[in-house]
Amino acid sequence: MTNFSDISSELGRQAIELPSWAFGNSGTRFKVFGSEGTPRSVEEKLADAAQVHALTGLAPSVALHIPWDRVDDFDKLGRVAEDLGVRLGTINSNTFQDDDYRLGSLTHVDERIRAKAVAHHLECVDIMDVTGSRDLKIWLADGTNYPGQGDLRGRQDRLADSLRQIYERLGDHQRLVLEYKFFEPAFYATDVPDWGTSLLHCLALGDRAMVCLDTGHHAPGTNIEFIVMQLLRAGRLGSFDFNSRFYADDDLIVGAADPFQLFRILFEVIRGGGYDEDSEVAFMLDQCHNVEDKIPGQIRSVLNVQEMTARALLVDRVALAEAERLGDVLGANGILMDAFYTDVRADLAQWRGDRGLPTDPMAAYIASGYQDQIAADRIGGTQAGWGA
Amino acid sequence: MTNFSDISSELGRQAIELPSWAFGNSGTRFKVFGSEGTPRSVEEKLADAAQVHALTGLAPSVALHIPWDRVDDFDKLGRVAEDLGVRLGTINSNTFQDDDYRLGSLTHVDERIRAKAVAHHLECVDIMDVTGSRDLKIWLADGTNYPGQGDLRGRQDRLADSLRQIYERLGDHQRLVLEYKFFEPAFYATDVPDWGTSLLHCLALGDRAMVCLDTGHHAPGTNIEFIVMQLLRAGRLGSFDFNSRFYADDDLIVGAADPFQLFRILFEVIRGGGYDEDSEVAFMLDQCHNVEDKIPGQIRSVLNVQEMTARALLVDRVALAEAERLGDVLGANGILMDAFYTDVRADLAQWRGDRGLPTDPMAAYIASGYQDQIAADRIGGTQAGWGA
Amino acid sequence: MTNFSDISSELGRQAIELPSWAFGNSGTRFKVFGSEGTPRSVEEKLADAAQVHALTGLAPSVALHIPWDRVDDFDKLGRVAEDLGVRLGTINSNTFQDDDYRLGSLTHVDERIRAKAVAHHLECVDIMDVTGSRDLKIWLADGTNYPGQGDLRGRQDRLADSLRQIYERLGDHQRLVLEYKFFEPAFYATDVPDWGTSLLHCLALGDRAMVCLDTGHHAPGTNIEFIVMQLLRAGRLGSFDFNSRFYADDDLIVGAADPFQLFRILFEVIRGGGYDEDSEVAFMLDQCHNVEDKIPGQIRSVLNVQEMTARALLVDRVALAEAERLGDVLGANGILMDAFYTDVRADLAQWRGDRGLPTDPMAAYIASGYQDQIAADRIGGTQAGWGA
Amino acid sequence: MTNFSDISSELGRQAIELPSWAFGNSGTRFKVFGSEGTPRSVEEKLADAAQVHALTGLAPSVALHIPWDRVDDFDKLGRVAEDLGVRLGTINSNTFQDDDYRLGSLTHVDERIRAKAVAHHLECVDIMDVTGSRDLKIWLADGTNYPGQGDLRGRQDRLADSLRQIYERLGDHQRLVLEYKFFEPAFYATDVPDWGTSLLHCLALGDRAMVCLDTGHHAPGTNIEFIVMQLLRAGRLGSFDFNSRFYADDDLIVGAADPFQLFRILFEVIRGGGYDEDSEVAFMLDQCHNVEDKIPGQIRSVLNVQEMTARALLVDRVALAEAERLGDVLGANGILMDAFYTDVRADLAQWRGDRGLPTDPMAAYIASGYQDQIAADRIGGTQAGWGA
Repeated sequence: MTNFSDISSELGRQAIELPSWAFGNSGTRFKVFGSEGTPRSVEEKLADAAQVHALTGLAPSVALHIPWDRVDDFDKLGRVAEDLGVRLGTINSNTFQDDDYRLGSLTHVDERIRAKAVAHHLECVDIMDVTGSRDLKIWLADGTNYPGQGDLRGRQDRLADSLRQIYERLGDHQRLVLEYKFFEPAFYATDVPDWGTSLLHCLALGDRAMVCLDTGHHAPGTNIEFIVMQLLRAGRLGSFDFNSRFYADDDLIVGAADPFQLFRILFEVIRGGGYDEDSEVAFMLDQCHNVEDKIPGQIRSVLNVQEMTARALLVDRVALAEAERLGDVLGANGILMDAFYTDVRADLAQWRGDRGLPTDPMAAYIASGYQDQIAADRIGGTQAGWGA
Repeated sequence: MTNFSDISSELGRQAIELPSWAFGNSGTRFKVFGSEGTPRSVEEKLADAAQVHALTGLAPSVALHIPWDRVDDFDKLGRVAEDLGVRLGTINSNTFQDDDYRLGSLTHVDERIRAKAVAHHLECVDIMDVTGSRDLKIWLADGTNYPGQGDLRGRQDRLADSLRQIYERLGDHQRLVLEYKFFEPAFYATDVPDWGTSLLHCLALGDRAMVCLDTGHHAPGTNIEFIVMQLLRAGRLGSFDFNSRFYADDDLIVGAADPFQLFRILFEVIRGGGYDEDSEVAFMLDQCHNVEDKIPGQIRSVLNVQEMTARALLVDRVALAEAERLGDVLGANGILMDAFYTDVRADLAQWRGDRGLPTDPMAAYIASGYQDQIAADRIGGTQAGWGA
Repeated sequence: MTNFSDISSELGRQAIELPSWAFGNSGTRFKVFGSEGTPRSVEEKLADAAQVHALTGLAPSVALHIPWDRVDDFDKLGRVAEDLGVRLGTINSNTFQDDDYRLGSLTHVDERIRAKAVAHHLECVDIMDVTGSRDLKIWLADGTNYPGQGDLRGRQDRLADSLRQIYERLGDHQRLVLEYKFFEPAFYATDVPDWGTSLLHCLALGDRAMVCLDTGHHAPGTNIEFIVMQLLRAGRLGSFDFNSRFYADDDLIVGAADPFQLFRILFEVIRGGGYDEDSEVAFMLDQCHNVEDKIPGQIRSVLNVQEMTARALLVDRVALAEAERLGDVLGANGILMDAFYTDVRADLAQWRGDRGLPTDPMAAYIASGYQDQIAADRIGGTQAGWGA
Repeated sequence: MTNFSDISSELGRQAIELPSWAFGNSGTRFKVFGSEGTPRSVEEKLADAAQVHALTGLAPSVALHIPWDRVDDFDKLGRVAEDLGVRLGTINSNTFQDDDYRLGSLTHVDERIRAKAVAHHLECVDIMDVTGSRDLKIWLADGTNYPGQGDLRGRQDRLADSLRQIYERLGDHQRLVLEYKFFEPAFYATDVPDWGTSLLHCLALGDRAMVCLDTGHHAPGTNIEFIVMQLLRAGRLGSFDFNSRFYADDDLIVGAADPFQLFRILFEVIRGGGYDEDSEVAFMLDQCHNVEDKIPGQIRSVLNVQEMTARALLVDRVALAEAERLGDVLGANGILMDAFYTDVRADLAQWRGDRGLPTDPMAAYIASGYQDQIAADRIGGTQAGWGA
């Protein structure tokens, strides 16, 4: 097996983008529980995200969600971020919370509403021009709940046209990243339900259209690392939304439900070049901390990704290829498991210490008093959350 | 096959309870869309429910949800219902929207919170004493999101104790009906996740503890009619919450996603005695009309149940038993399908006409002008919805 | 709703290919049950298939499986078929029953074995040249059971190369149809697990490479009609393998498990042009009659497809489009359900009678005495089955 | 966290029963691949099993399957086992490979066939009397493939009667262990599909009727450790059939698909008393080595169970309970993960060395030359496999 010292520098280039909305309240359709210290503004979200980065060195950028994070002056917001030690990242559009979008947005049969949804995305690109963001990420809630409700093909054709309008607005260094999702909030047909659909649209759009893979957006039993491999092979893996799930799109902490799956995913990322120095694959979190504390939830998450990346880097790929060549099924599997079962935590603590980071970021956060501080400071105002 | 005329009187005793909350706004965690004419009070919900019954003759009672439908004078509310032509039915408790219940209610490790949850149920029984309701239905959102978060066994033991306290408060003609659900809002372990768990608690409690089967609360692929058969065989099928699903607990209109499954379920109900004159099985709807109109959504739902009940009653059970005896697989299946494929809609229209009901309740509702009337009248106030 | 008389001629062009292997014994990994009268040769399989066509008029061609149906003289076999009133159709390759293929075939890391698998396909094209078959259908059992066992990307690259070699051998009027399957017999990663993967390979190969959609080869909950729509939109839906399932690839009689799903699939076929006069979409059965009689099982299957096609043709698509335009969710759904619930069986009986076919093919088969005849005649020899 | 030295003695009492059939050939419905050295008799299976125990110290007993392992003199077979260093364990019945059982066995509507199935089980108890086996394990393939094929309730009632006849034959120290399975080989309704059904039968039978939990026999997403907890709470967890799965009943090596799930299962076993000194829970493997070598496959499997048992024993349960009491979600989860991520392999190697076992049993097996020996010796005869 590869030694930890050999992967130390590779770990140094890891960067995981945090979503601003992870710091706001979230919940299920049954209840959103509030918590003390929840941010009331995008600036406070950035401050919380900056804590995660300060303690781990893993999270240098923050994704924004429009309109949740809309401000008058994005240039100024960028400087706020910079002062906090982070930068603004991906811009996420939102076409699922305006009453007009009840039956669709970029797919809507009513041209007025569809134009409004397209215009929202153009505004997002305007924002990207100011923030310097590379990626416009589109997750569509569009779909239908009942058979017959919409013409599946018509919706697809309109989607293609809407995406084309948006894509044409992009600058040369900007990308459109199209996310797919198996179901929810639509319960019969979702308009971008799988990687195949997302890829077909990207292929029609052009080179700067990429697929976003959210690890919670698949049918039960789906082999996600296979899709990772396939999208890397096709040159169309744009970004990850990391989280984990036991059932549906549970949005739990990445690595919490099935750490071995996360390991396999990261192994395919690495094997397929997605972690190479020149890779343009973006790694992001997209989770809901419904019952746990948000900031330590994000810290735990980026650490989980780092730990699994380390294990995946440790795999002896030469030996693995040889075992495959020999048809040694148990041997090959054993080589992979050997890396997975290696406890890298002490090495990573040392690695952090060597870089001036706290060896135990979770403990350091608790010791920092930050949580008590924000609980005391952030009184009044409206706590951020989905829709706020 | 049996003739429609032979089942006509059996259809006459069908009664499907409507949930008061079906008339309020509902949605997903992403968005709750409002609609014109949505009730602002429990009395307005009852008025809407009464429309469904007036047009179909199928929905004589309305289930209440506490605290959503709490009023000062339930006796008076009962008279309001009576004046509208319906009556009050099952009382549903709610322990998922108070901040105290973030980590559990009847299972909570904190005795103070658990006592509060028990007390809420005792209040529900107080209400039942006034409304004359037979059933206290308990659906618990309790569960955990992360492995280790709670001691699964400890939670179960506390649940058993809580249920015992509630059960002991019941009057002789009252029942405790315990619903199970595969997942959501808990994403790792749900404390009553399957019929086996619900049944174990019921067996421990006594004869008046029954299982509630919500048709949307199972793992993918589960054979629901098998569970119906098994619970009837055990004498513990208390009630149904009807709805339909393609994915998870989608809460779509019953029969919309898989009409053949609804047929099979109702066939097992009938075969197992659950539709007999002396059956105590309660039939209820529990759906969310997120994108469709609520009142016609409920009308469509009770009609779907009626249509499938008619088809299921048409099955030639004598011929079916003979085909099974002969090992005639295709013959037996054909007998069942024969009834399923029979179009009973014209016969049911006539059946309704014979009883002074509109032959086409959906059209009659649209023609009635009721929707326009409530849209005009119900201005101001707070629309009802989950949590309101 | 459209009238039955308006769809009568459209029903006339329906053709469903039967698989030769449906007439042999099949089973599960636990047991293959034999039955009297099972064919012992491909000629006897053709004779059985011809019975299905004679009684229904729906099944004019028979798919062969190589090597199961290999004969010395395929030209002669074609004449045998012709004399029986049917013709030879799709050629199916088989790379899952030779010991060499334990770890793969077209994806195998060993070039010798991979070349052998390619050569097998070239032989299949040789046969197609003689039989005049249009389609070479490839279903691959290739995959891995354990993480690490094979390099997912390497397998994919070798598959692409193998397919290219096969594709280049095709004549101008021949097609390569690549089937995908979620899992089984591979239990970790399947090399062509989803429509996206199949499509990517087809796009790389050329215009005569198409996707085969087997209705049993998807993850739980997958919206299959959406994939139908998408593949028709991309011009790459080559063929169907019809069957039905409750759990995995159960290979039950098409329409038996979820008739409404079959209806929706056929509706999307029709709406997307897949049933048009000039459509090149092939409709085939691929089922296993493990516990039921095989010939009536096939008769039941083609009748199910016909009945659902009739219902799907009855949908009032003009009204449906208008309801969608108005955002009338319940209205649109009602229009679709109206057609689904229409009992077309009497009309179809008449339709058959008008064409000189038995009005009740199932009864006609039983009355024909064919089953007794083959049970008496087919004594000795080896019954056909998977692998025989 | 607990130290390894504290759990050392607890590891000493671990015993995992091997199934005789794991050493024979197995496969899918598509193909059973043979391999060199496969046993041709039950004695050779015992010899192979003895190798696993000799190298790991973990597998002192072997389960038999009747009729696959039927011999004239079971007393002699017991001595053969003893001479090899193992003993005979659970007796497994088989009612799925006789032509009579096509439509059922203990549930069959034909009393003659049902009596035959009962008689087979009585013979199994006769064998148990000779072998000294404690457990009769019943896995039923019974079920139906098509709705209507069988009366679900009637089948259940006959099953209850059949089980009663078998149970009554048991000696005072013998147990009936009833396995459940979600689906396969039945594809519509399985007669014992879930733990609830198995438990209901066990409760009706008496104290010596227990549930067998096969880890591959659940619906997608099922929380298996919850069922473990619940069955231990009810005092009815009789035994485990260990294996792992990505999709359905894949029968892969235990721990291969989701090691974290295996950890959670073993943690609940321990927490619920199932690993206590006086526990009567039986731990068995039930896997199919389709593409990998069988003996090292079994070695790998028992080592996986041991490694995860060690990790589960390391959990600091006092700290865990305290974190739960404080509502510290992330803290509690962290305590559990801490044990899971601990690499116990070096400690276990030492533990083995201390007990005179090879520190690396996989390497020791390869070095032993046993595989070459059996490949050379076992020429001719019929290789064992399912049905052989």
